[in-house]
Amino acid sequence: MRIVGLQIGLGSRIRKSPFFEALVRHGLTHVTVYNHMYMPGSFGDPDEEYRALVERVSLWDVAAERQVEVVGPDAFTLCQYVSARDLRGMKVGRVRYAPMCDHDGTLINDPMVLKLAEDRFWISIADSDMLLWCRAVATERGLNCRVFEPDVSPLGVQGPRADDTMADLLGEWVRDVPFFGFVETSHDSIPFVLCRSGWSGQGGFELFLQDGSRGLDLWDAVWAAGEKYGIHPGAPTLNERIESDLFSYRADCGAGASPLEIGLNRYVSLDRDDDFIGKVALLTEQKRGPARRLVKALLTGERFPATSESPWPAVGQDGTPCGEVRVAAWSPKHESNLCLALVSAEVAGGPFRTVTPSGETLNASHHAYFAEQ
Amino acid sequence: MRIVGLQIGLGSRIRKSPFFEALVRHGLTHVTVYNHMYMPGSFGDPDEEYRALVERVSLWDVAAERQVEVVGPDAFTLCQYVSARDLRGMKVGRVRYAPMCDHDGTLINDPMVLKLAEDRFWISIADSDMLLWCRAVATERGLNCRVFEPDVSPLGVQGPRADDTMADLLGEWVRDVPFFGFVETSHDSIPFVLCRSGWSGQGGFELFLQDGSRGLDLWDAVWAAGEKYGIHPGAPTLNERIESDLFSYRADCGAGASPLEIGLNRYVSLDRDDDFIGKVALLTEQKRGPARRLVKALLTGERFPATSESPWPAVGQDGTPCGEVRVAAWSPKHESNLCLALVSAEVAGGPFRTVTPSGETLNASHHAYFAEQ
Repeated sequence: MRIVGLQIGLGSRIRKSPFFEALVRHGLTHVTVYNHMYMPGSFGDPDEEYRALVERVSLWDVAAERQVEVVGPDAFTLCQYVSARDLRGMKVGRVRYAPMCDHDGTLINDPMVLKLAEDRFWISIADSDMLLWCRAVATERGLNCRVFEPDVSPLGVQGPRADDTMADLLGEWVRDVPFFGFVETSHDSIPFVLCRSGWSGQGGFELFLQDGSRGLDLWDAVWAAGEKYGIHPGAPTLNERIESDLFSYRADCGAGASPLEIGLNRYVSLDRDDDFIGKVALLTEQKRGPARRLVKALLTGERFPATSESPWPAVGQDGTPCGEVRVAAWSPKHESNLCLALVSAEVAGGPFRTVTPSGETLNASHHAYFAEQ
Repeated sequence: MRIVGLQIGLGSRIRKSPFFEALVRHGLTHVTVYNHMYMPGSFGDPDEEYRALVERVSLWDVAAERQVEVVGPDAFTLCQYVSARDLRGMKVGRVRYAPMCDHDGTLINDPMVLKLAEDRFWISIADSDMLLWCRAVATERGLNCRVFEPDVSPLGVQGPRADDTMADLLGEWVRDVPFFGFVETSHDSIPFVLCRSGWSGQGGFELFLQDGSRGLDLWDAVWAAGEKYGIHPGAPTLNERIESDLFSYRADCGAGASPLEIGLNRYVSLDRDDDFIGKVALLTEQKRGPARRLVKALLTGERFPATSESPWPAVGQDGTPCGEVRVAAWSPKHESNLCLALVSAEVAGGPFRTVTPSGETLNASHHAYFAEQ
């Protein structure tokens, strides 16, 4: 595996989060760009970042997971129409993971939707401009709701000591916040929404900061509360999230897969009696079966020194191209190299091979269909 | 000015262009992310990159300027409706710069539109997901056209020797391609559209490669032709493009300005008799006058060691906040620090001050209203 080291240019086109100065202070070394914002990638020691996440508590600037706020009499109508998942029956203070498709049934985002009031929602988005999508749909359909980006910036507190950290900061009541439930609260007059969610299998909270001028205050408060639990600065962690079956839009599928290929079936309500964008296409695909499947596979070879830098070609047992290894990394949990591959339905479930940029051929042995364990 | 050095994480979420391996081979040091793709920023010597661009010829991977292809009986209807500029009267083989707004009159992109046939267009976009926007509008309005991203990747050849380079490669006829005109052609069976355009004031061409598997072949062919003219690897160049009055969406305005604030008036057809998205809002804004203006100003102080990393606060003569210095850099042409600032209409045209992250106060003296010289 060749590793290319590149600096990123800093400038005004890409936004910095309200937590950015704290990241620099804590030794940020690597960033990426997500929703037109810098998002931390590493503080220089990925192994320690993994350990902190699975054994202690990790603090993540995930402000790049922007909110699309929808408010007004037709707010629910819009959210329901753009979501492949049925949002009916949601209570205020609850979250649903709701894949969104275009009219061809192609996945264009996989946000969490937070219901703040009967007529007010946050769509907490992955890396595509859903603000434009939702605004176009709302306006062209003449729906009576405002669609805008509020001053809201999530901060992640993830790991087995996340509950202790937040209980020390806010009180024991935080332990009773249910999974995918949230509460509007504040600390030291910093307003935020405390939600039990986050992009790891370790559990924890996301604090949706509602005043960008207080970013450093919130970071420092959580940091201080977490010090006795060994808090560490971190970021969304590739190998841990693959181990935990958490999907990454674009990384795992480019921008051209259907939710059925990914294995998100249980989050797609194909039995809905109302219309939503992509419904006809998804029903057709369901009938004939998805052409590709996202699979989790173990890979042979020495421990990768880093995560893969680009998709690698996948070839079937007979040597014919069958798709791509989308992401690959060393997995501490499996003590093996691990990958997600988007491969033809015929090959999925069995062995295949992949070729790295340095020309090495690796054998992939099937571990699971993604998101279906 | 503090300078933060950060590495960028490489992975499958962000796409590499068909030219990427050539960039690495030529010593790429800095990248940015644009339309979910890596885009080169520097090869390690910005001064030499500036000189190559204004004195010789520079080769740019601008594949991140993705195309939204619109084809079908209603293709023109869609393009015309999403464009604030009137596209009527365009001939096949010609380009128009066409700002696009949302329904509130906020600029959401400023693409070039290429007319390939009466029923086929490429919208060559800046950094926002116009594919989603155009698809939502087309589908919700029931327009009969396909909207998709084709396999097209622009390569820029910019600078005073760009014509010589391309004439050596393709023949003397390229000198007759008019500004914002294009021709479908090929070299060594590599298919591309040769367009006289590009994001510099120096002139040149963009080669819209139509087969991603031939990226390195096209790069190498242009490089070989340009060697005797001193060709240099480069990238969109901040100080040169400010000097040349070329607008950068997001960098110069965040994501919340109107084209009238930017000074793009001559590209916005407010006298159109047909409807387009944002028309009502823009007519209202025109009547009351824009609240802010984008201005080009000279800044005091020692030569900046690098370009600005984020917006700096701007304050009026009386000390009250009046907007932001969006981008700042040393200008060889003006032999001064130079900036673009989005400031209140009252302050625009006169002096103001700005404060850098290191606490230095710089005086700004008005040079021009942007894009109105």
